[in-house]
Amino acid sequence: MNYSIIRRTTGLVMKFEAIFLLLPALTGLIYREKEGLIYLGLAAAYFLIGYLINFKVETRASFYTKEGFISVGLVWIVISLCGALPFVLCGDIPSYPDALFETISGFTTTGSSILSDVEALSHASLFWRSFTHWVGGMGVIVFVLAIMPMRKGGTGNQIHMMRAESPGPVVGKLVPKIRDTAKILYIIYFGMTVAEIILLLVAGMPLFDTLCLSFGTAGTGGFGVLGDSIASYPLLQQGIITVFMILFGVNFNAYFFLFLGKDKKDAFRLTEVRWYFLIIAFSIVTITINIHKMFDNLFLAFHHAAFQVGSIITTTGYATADFNLWPQYSRCLLVLIMFIGACAGSTGGGIKVSRIIILVKAGIQEIHHYIHPRAVTSVHMDGKPVENETVRSVIMYLGIYIVIFCASVLLVTAFDGDESLETIFTAVAATINNIGPGLSAVGATANFGHLSLPSKFVLMFDMLAGRLELYPMLLLIYHLFGRRK
Amino acid sequence: MNYSIIRRTTGLVMKFEAIFLLLPALTGLIYREKEGLIYLGLAAAYFLIGYLINFKVETRASFYTKEGFISVGLVWIVISLCGALPFVLCGDIPSYPDALFETISGFTTTGSSILSDVEALSHASLFWRSFTHWVGGMGVIVFVLAIMPMRKGGTGNQIHMMRAESPGPVVGKLVPKIRDTAKILYIIYFGMTVAEIILLLVAGMPLFDTLCLSFGTAGTGGFGVLGDSIASYPLLQQGIITVFMILFGVNFNAYFFLFLGKDKKDAFRLTEVRWYFLIIAFSIVTITINIHKMFDNLFLAFHHAAFQVGSIITTTGYATADFNLWPQYSRCLLVLIMFIGACAGSTGGGIKVSRIIILVKAGIQEIHHYIHPRAVTSVHMDGKPVENETVRSVIMYLGIYIVIFCASVLLVTAFDGDESLETIFTAVAATINNIGPGLSAVGATANFGHLSLPSKFVLMFDMLAGRLELYPMLLLIYHLFGRRK
Repeated sequence: MNYSIIRRTTGLVMKFEAIFLLLPALTGLIYREKEGLIYLGLAAAYFLIGYLINFKVETRASFYTKEGFISVGLVWIVISLCGALPFVLCGDIPSYPDALFETISGFTTTGSSILSDVEALSHASLFWRSFTHWVGGMGVIVFVLAIMPMRKGGTGNQIHMMRAESPGPVVGKLVPKIRDTAKILYIIYFGMTVAEIILLLVAGMPLFDTLCLSFGTAGTGGFGVLGDSIASYPLLQQGIITVFMILFGVNFNAYFFLFLGKDKKDAFRLTEVRWYFLIIAFSIVTITINIHKMFDNLFLAFHHAAFQVGSIITTTGYATADFNLWPQYSRCLLVLIMFIGACAGSTGGGIKVSRIIILVKAGIQEIHHYIHPRAVTSVHMDGKPVENETVRSVIMYLGIYIVIFCASVLLVTAFDGDESLETIFTAVAATINNIGPGLSAVGATANFGHLSLPSKFVLMFDMLAGRLELYPMLLLIYHLFGRRK
Repeated sequence: MNYSIIRRTTGLVMKFEAIFLLLPALTGLIYREKEGLIYLGLAAAYFLIGYLINFKVETRASFYTKEGFISVGLVWIVISLCGALPFVLCGDIPSYPDALFETISGFTTTGSSILSDVEALSHASLFWRSFTHWVGGMGVIVFVLAIMPMRKGGTGNQIHMMRAESPGPVVGKLVPKIRDTAKILYIIYFGMTVAEIILLLVAGMPLFDTLCLSFGTAGTGGFGVLGDSIASYPLLQQGIITVFMILFGVNFNAYFFLFLGKDKKDAFRLTEVRWYFLIIAFSIVTITINIHKMFDNLFLAFHHAAFQVGSIITTTGYATADFNLWPQYSRCLLVLIMFIGACAGSTGGGIKVSRIIILVKAGIQEIHHYIHPRAVTSVHMDGKPVENETVRSVIMYLGIYIVIFCASVLLVTAFDGDESLETIFTAVAATINNIGPGLSAVGATANFGHLSLPSKFVLMFDMLAGRLELYPMLLLIYHLFGRRK
């Protein structure tokens, strides 16, 4: 085990978190809140600690997948542990475990909250809460890679860490250098966030709300600044958020091809993006038909269907309507697309559309194989055959995912026997897929605060496991408790 | 496509069904019910039709997996379509689709019922209903193979059909000849059923109940003869049923080793059987602790926990207590073991313990691979390495299973929007895993009669797909609607 690389990464990330904390400190200053000083103080403290951790650490060149995955798992735990502290010191969330739940929910872009009254928070804390979404969305390691000067021979290390933090079965390097790939991703991400901020401002939303909601949309997080999520904003602003939620769920490779690629048509040839839009269209149309009697006119039904579908498939978790009260078909379809999730290489969570495609195609191929046993076929995506190894690892991913899912549900029923199975099932689904709200007692108008402490820890694990696509957290556990050889 | 083999098999099976129908006819005669004559008349008619279908049919030797699987799928549809008719003609179940649901539920050993008053049925129909469980449990094709004289060169055909009908990822031939394997299986099956009948008679149960309940236990079906399932029988009789349910869920290979093997210890070396008993023990102990306050003493809690766990993991579906009213942990664990199911090579349904073992081991191997990328490892079972092809097909099976499961849930929510998600989810789980009762409105004290007709057809498909382990039904659909080349 190469501990020096883990020390180096952890120290570096703490220094970055210190810089991030300056933003809520500034917000506090503008609103003349004393909480701003707490954020400023913590920023200074974290920078110092980061500096001390990094002091005279030598990194060896040899570096394997294992260290990459475990570092990423640790980094995410450290930023969450540190990020939760200001909420407690400000008195906004007095209980540290609750603050940790909220912070993990923020960084992992889940958006599940333990707060019953969001509006009581200070502006500094509200801003910090939403900003964690933005940082977590594209990934904190990817951010560090994009900013830090590259070391000689460090490319091998970086691809492992980027792989551990980026969603989807395959991480393609857009350009030969990892650092340039990370930079391009953040430039697209930053550009699109700015575009949303401008459009929302033009549509008349106040600046503070604009920033927080744009961070929440970009990271597909879901924390809002009002008690009723997005319900009380005008239709136009809701519409803009709908469009951007869906755009941030698209594989960023598509934007790379569109803005920087040689052939712009490549963007429209991506199988995953086409399926993504097909699933969205199917869901919006059938839900609109299913709920149209609940609204004054068909347009309103369509508007709310589109918002909720966009919010859930991209795993954002904003709500303009209480879909817990919708008919069963709509509720069930929404739970189903919770699992499907967004595209690989986007900021969204869930199983990812590309994994579903590979699964479905491999299934059809399997049936085909029974009919034509001698035919040699393989699963194709984007016009190219998918390697058998990829198909295997996708299916294995699903297996491990199911085991974690079932174990979590069972643990939560043991700790919270009074909750309904629907509540427990969707609480786990909403956290492991990084959505935010579930149904029933954890629905869009409720929160996670009433769950027991052990259940909250199970769900915190699920949020981290879901965001980091299982392996970093599992390797961490395996390393800590696994068999020694 | 070799249609002659399909014609031959279908005709043969109709003749066998005619013979099976003589048993309820006899029952009717004993109880002096006019319904007996209807069973007798249908037996004659089916024998004639079977004879006509088989008239001058020549079977070609060339025969592939495809024909084997499609024949089996068709055979199960034909026996269900024919088997449902007497219920309608007797007036016991006036609606043909309901009668079909009940018959498919019988042959697939599901035990889900549309009847609100079982006790109103004639003895002939009650007997037929339970007897379908016994025939379906070990398989109708396996029965035909065990009885029919073998044709020269027919072995290749038979292994395909036996593979399609037998549960589990791998069908081992116990002895070199398929026909002898089928015979041995039926001898063990018959012997154990007789043992249960004798023990229940000794414990004081009336003969008619003894026969029906033993058929239901042996086939892991779950149809009873009283309105409250098994709740009103004395504790001793319930205990005997508990033991036999669990025994019929064991891989029959274990019995082969035990009674006929060279080394009797082989039976205890089977990984699957050991895990099966471990899962049962874990479930009984934790559920006993979870429910002990609901019963007068710990023994009663243990008794009912054992009965319900045995009933559900073996996918039988009998009940001695309304587990729908148990605490969430118990309800959730019962739903979970619904999916696990019994051992491969038993009469039980579900995903099968061996598939779960392979999945878990492959998952651990995958994580291990990240830690030690250069180590060459493979999944082991019964001390031997499992072929990669088997691991792949097990995981693929699960993928297809999940797709069918989700599609079914979504369809039922569309047709029965008034039912709760818990009802719909467990209705699909209880049918695709061939259990019987689910939770809420399809719980142990309720029935499936109130669901809409399209939902019933979805669930009928699920029962057949679950019993035949997906492929025969999927190949049938693929053949009917798939792309022609």
